Amino acid sequence: MREPAAFLFDEPLSNLDAKLRVQMRVEIKQLQRRLKTTSLYVTHDQLEAMTLGDRLVVLNAGQIEQVGTPMEIYARPASMFVAGFIGSPAMNMLPVDYLNEQGANGLLDNLPDGTDTVGIRPDDMHLAPPALPHLIVDSTLALFEAAGAESHLYVTLADSDQPTVIRVSGQPPVAEGETLRFFVTRDALHPFNSTTGKRTGD
Amino acid sequence: MREPAAFLFDEPLSNLDAKLRVQMRVEIKQLQRRLKTTSLYVTHDQLEAMTLGDRLVVLNAGQIEQVGTPMEIYARPASMFVAGFIGSPAMNMLPVDYLNEQGANGLLDNLPDGTDTVGIRPDDMHLAPPALPHLIVDSTLALFEAAGAESHLYVTLADSDQPTVIRVSGQPPVAEGETLRFFVTRDALHPFNSTTGKRTGD
Repeated sequence: MREPAAFLFDEPLSNLDAKLRVQMRVEIKQLQRRLKTTSLYVTHDQLEAMTLGDRLVVLNAGQIEQVGTPMEIYARPASMFVAGFIGSPAMNMLPVDYLNEQGANGLLDNLPDGTDTVGIRPDDMHLAPPALPHLIVDSTLALFEAAGAESHLYVTLADSDQPTVIRVSGQPPVAEGETLRFFVTRDALHPFNSTTGKRTGD
Repeated sequence: MREPAAFLFDEPLSNLDAKLRVQMRVEIKQLQRRLKTTSLYVTHDQLEAMTLGDRLVVLNAGQIEQVGTPMEIYARPASMFVAGFIGSPAMNMLPVDYLNEQGANGLLDNLPDGTDTVGIRPDDMHLAPPALPHLIVDSTLALFEAAGAESHLYVTLADSDQPTVIRVSGQPPVAEGETLRFFVTRDALHPFNSTTGKRTGD
């Protein structure tokens, strides 16, 4: 019988198991649609944040890092912190110098001023060459995770000890210890400056 | 300095946030690889179970429902309970009679004796017709969840109030309230008997 001006949720689903968490997430979203009451929802679960929010506020140590719709923040994270926090497995961060040494095919030529790091989502690292111009990097498969409909390939890059993860559909026929070549297109590169931690360019 | 015969883990990661949970999961897996010590790991998180275990034991109210490798259990769940527990979002369960009414194109003709329900994973419901023979079912999009690299489409089936979820890559251009036609191939059907809750056939 209460009609509050706003609902406040403080990590309501964090103690539930995975299946119940998904069910409750959907119920909360449907309830919110029906009641149309402004809700403020605090969560550490990035999937809840992505799927429930009309507008996300990403906080880092009490400071606002970015405000936007979930897909705006996913597509164009404003800082390395946001890039690492939204999306799972987390976005890979690679030094521009390293990628140039590997042979970047001119793909890194027009990055915004100040860029020394590019972020690449695990989904944007392809095992088969795409039609577009692309970066090529060799790596060794350190750990394979089959997660049902998708797999996570934890690789070690050539001439580097940087851990990097690739996400693919299904189960590719790869073995741990194998050398894997992966491909990245220009539009998958998120430019950052590692000193400020911010996205570079406009 | 201890060299135990086995390690026992009791939901060690359940209170961590999503990003740290993935990092720790990978570290535990690498540690296990290095030490080669048998580990018994209890979790409610199906992604941890899938990615960490060499062998899974799925318990339901203290009873063993199924034992096998994670991918065996994912590909061929022995009961409706296991089918709903492993995989996220959970497998959809649809009555055979209902699918026959919708026009099943002969795809349900050779199901094992006793089958009255088929399970279909959210990933196996396609929005564009596949090349193989397929079921066709109309539905209405009730709720759209954009989760970054993937989207979840919660639909209501034609002539039914059964909630059903479709998982697709990226963000399809669909609107809530829209009628969606989806397609399912024969090999995506998991046959069950709803009275026993068990998988039918061999």
